[in-house]
Amino acid sequence: MNENHEASLQVDQNGKLKHLITLEGLSRPVIESLLERAERYGQEPLSIRFDPSQSVALLFCEASTRTRMSFSLAAWRLGYPVVNLEPDRSSLAKSETLEDTVSTLEAMGVRYLVLRHSQPGIFKTLIDSPGRTIHCISAGEAHRSHPTQGLLDLLTIRQHFPDLARLSVAIVGDLAHSRVARSTFTALRTFGVSDIRLSAPPELAPHPGDFQGAPNHTLDEALLDVQVVIALRVQTERLTDTPTINPSHYYSQYGLTSERLRRCHPDVRIMHPGPIHPGMELAPELINSRRSLIREQVRNGLPIRMAVYEMLTS
Amino acid sequence: MNENHEASLQVDQNGKLKHLITLEGLSRPVIESLLERAERYGQEPLSIRFDPSQSVALLFCEASTRTRMSFSLAAWRLGYPVVNLEPDRSSLAKSETLEDTVSTLEAMGVRYLVLRHSQPGIFKTLIDSPGRTIHCISAGEAHRSHPTQGLLDLLTIRQHFPDLARLSVAIVGDLAHSRVARSTFTALRTFGVSDIRLSAPPELAPHPGDFQGAPNHTLDEALLDVQVVIALRVQTERLTDTPTINPSHYYSQYGLTSERLRRCHPDVRIMHPGPIHPGMELAPELINSRRSLIREQVRNGLPIRMAVYEMLTS
Amino acid sequence: MNENHEASLQVDQNGKLKHLITLEGLSRPVIESLLERAERYGQEPLSIRFDPSQSVALLFCEASTRTRMSFSLAAWRLGYPVVNLEPDRSSLAKSETLEDTVSTLEAMGVRYLVLRHSQPGIFKTLIDSPGRTIHCISAGEAHRSHPTQGLLDLLTIRQHFPDLARLSVAIVGDLAHSRVARSTFTALRTFGVSDIRLSAPPELAPHPGDFQGAPNHTLDEALLDVQVVIALRVQTERLTDTPTINPSHYYSQYGLTSERLRRCHPDVRIMHPGPIHPGMELAPELINSRRSLIREQVRNGLPIRMAVYEMLTS
Repeated sequence: MNENHEASLQVDQNGKLKHLITLEGLSRPVIESLLERAERYGQEPLSIRFDPSQSVALLFCEASTRTRMSFSLAAWRLGYPVVNLEPDRSSLAKSETLEDTVSTLEAMGVRYLVLRHSQPGIFKTLIDSPGRTIHCISAGEAHRSHPTQGLLDLLTIRQHFPDLARLSVAIVGDLAHSRVARSTFTALRTFGVSDIRLSAPPELAPHPGDFQGAPNHTLDEALLDVQVVIALRVQTERLTDTPTINPSHYYSQYGLTSERLRRCHPDVRIMHPGPIHPGMELAPELINSRRSLIREQVRNGLPIRMAVYEMLTS
Repeated sequence: MNENHEASLQVDQNGKLKHLITLEGLSRPVIESLLERAERYGQEPLSIRFDPSQSVALLFCEASTRTRMSFSLAAWRLGYPVVNLEPDRSSLAKSETLEDTVSTLEAMGVRYLVLRHSQPGIFKTLIDSPGRTIHCISAGEAHRSHPTQGLLDLLTIRQHFPDLARLSVAIVGDLAHSRVARSTFTALRTFGVSDIRLSAPPELAPHPGDFQGAPNHTLDEALLDVQVVIALRVQTERLTDTPTINPSHYYSQYGLTSERLRRCHPDVRIMHPGPIHPGMELAPELINSRRSLIREQVRNGLPIRMAVYEMLTS
Repeated sequence: MNENHEASLQVDQNGKLKHLITLEGLSRPVIESLLERAERYGQEPLSIRFDPSQSVALLFCEASTRTRMSFSLAAWRLGYPVVNLEPDRSSLAKSETLEDTVSTLEAMGVRYLVLRHSQPGIFKTLIDSPGRTIHCISAGEAHRSHPTQGLLDLLTIRQHFPDLARLSVAIVGDLAHSRVARSTFTALRTFGVSDIRLSAPPELAPHPGDFQGAPNHTLDEALLDVQVVIALRVQTERLTDTPTINPSHYYSQYGLTSERLRRCHPDVRIMHPGPIHPGMELAPELINSRRSLIREQVRNGLPIRMAVYEMLTS
């Protein structure tokens, strides 16, 4: 996935995490420590003081509701003020000035920049600058990575299936465009999940070289006896290079239905990063069923993001 | 007004108010208690601590400046962080996904959703869900209701005319589309104001069945000896079903002028929910005159909204 | 510059600064005191408590990233909540209603309004109102003034060249449209800088009567032995009355290059209010060079704005 460069840039010379751009190259103990912090935040009542020295700037150059809310709320939970930069009301969306924007925010004492951007590699230029003091956090980079989603997926799965080495997971759908799939795959691999099965329609199949070591399966093969099925959002906004996907045809071929879940392990759980296209990726009645971990994914997003903020500066 | 369903859904099985969607069905003691809290907030200096556990999400699917500001500032006054959802930057405006958005915010630990929406009945589907923990507050629902405006109008009137049973009030203007008129009417009725006179141009007359028990009057009849005149904003944005209203013609027929106020009680006070179309609903010189309670309405909006936040969780 | 009226309106009858609209007419001791506060904020760790009684409303009717961020962050640093008014989502941009908006915010207890507006003289009508309690702060008024930028420029220059009476400064570029140039010029004059040289292309020359006492020079004359060169942003958005400026032609005639800097004092420093058009006003390699004070300008913006907030209410 050619993220080795970001992977080495996001840590300092002592191995300390300074930015969170990708889960590639992050060691298991580092992630373990993040998950432990997150679980603590999820359980204990916080006694938080307002702390304006730790301000957070959010810049979402692609649409987002839930991720933006989650990063905002996580910051406020820690007492950190949040300022929103509006890409369409300024010239910020242009990649050539983004570096200047980051330096400007840094000079203003902003402590964290949370950035979502459609351009692969955008973070590399931002963090590869001597004396950079702002902490950059990816809230989604093109089709490449979405590290906090990978972490919250891992946390959600581990809370239900602590014995990760014996776990079987299927990731189903738009593997060509899904940054979620890439980050969740990396997180699961780092934690020793060996049986990860991918299944995508031919036109949404992963690019060669992605998801190393994970074979592509028919949907029937992928679902057989798995304990976790992750249905991916069809990234309709990225389908410019693909013929239009017909929702009902997609549903008939790749939609998760109660019928299809019978092939899975009796204790199977389903996940989806949201927002869902109901009746396309998932049967509507499954969304809030006892099989669903979807709300828990959203819930875990908050403590995961709190833990990320805290870890980068501690 | 067919809001009985919302009225029963906004309280829990013990009669405790959990949401504020409509003033229909709210008992006088409940409203009394809200007004008392609001008056306390208006008088005492607050010693407030930052409290990020009580976050507020604002979602305004119709334009608003003053109501949005008032809800924001009221939340901050209580120490609650505010996050803004942008309807046009996400798919949130679509009613089919709004329920999902609410559940998502709930999973993120958001404590209050303040929603303005043009679709009648939208709140019913949102609050009629088992296990709902977020508190929904209407900041305006179609033409139907605007409960915090009704409460602040009631508070403003009562501060000037404590003897509500003997009060005469005229509500003048766009009764067909005014959610303010409906909520203020309900609040005044609950507090025993029996002489409420309505007067609307024929094309903006209230629908049959609305404003039960209040007859429609000519403007001259409506103003005769009243102590309070509420001029309504002509909801130009809702006039799609009506021929265009000519501002100067409207003013000549229904505008409040110093001349027309001579028919009223010598101590008459005028009110307007804002924003005003000056020279249409009201003579410009009246806006800041000694007759005007318009600034007091705005001022009372803040403690009323603080009291609503506090009451829903206490 | 015909700002005498604002200059007298921004102070109360005791000479106390209540608004910050222009640096015209501000005495040296008042500005001195502002700079001293700012320097204190820049050095000491703050122990700040959340203070919702001091809320700030931002209304930017012209695009801005850095100034808006700087005012937001400065407010949060002091513990003051910030609310954003969106000019395009409401009717606020219309000058006829702006006065009403200010009164509304005032009635809601907002303590500061930070306003950027394209209409010259807009602040006069806003602050010239009896009983005005909100404090108005200009974040840029048409081509006329940008007082906090003038203050931060002065602070930045003085930190490097304490002996202002012996300083030579060149201000180069779009003098016709630059509010920065006007405010910085005024600030420097108040602090006794006598040798200020202006140099503009003929089509961007200052209007007669502006920059009193400062002659227009050729670029070569302006740069000769000066210790500070301020390159102005070409206000491309205000060039409606001027033939389009060709960037490379501008650069060849007025761009600051290492070559041209050789005419200056050996210890010359360069400044720019940002955002920069790289390769137009300035050679790209100079932006982060040891000659550049551009980051320090941004850095000083924060404590300057904190000091302004604090001074208006103390």
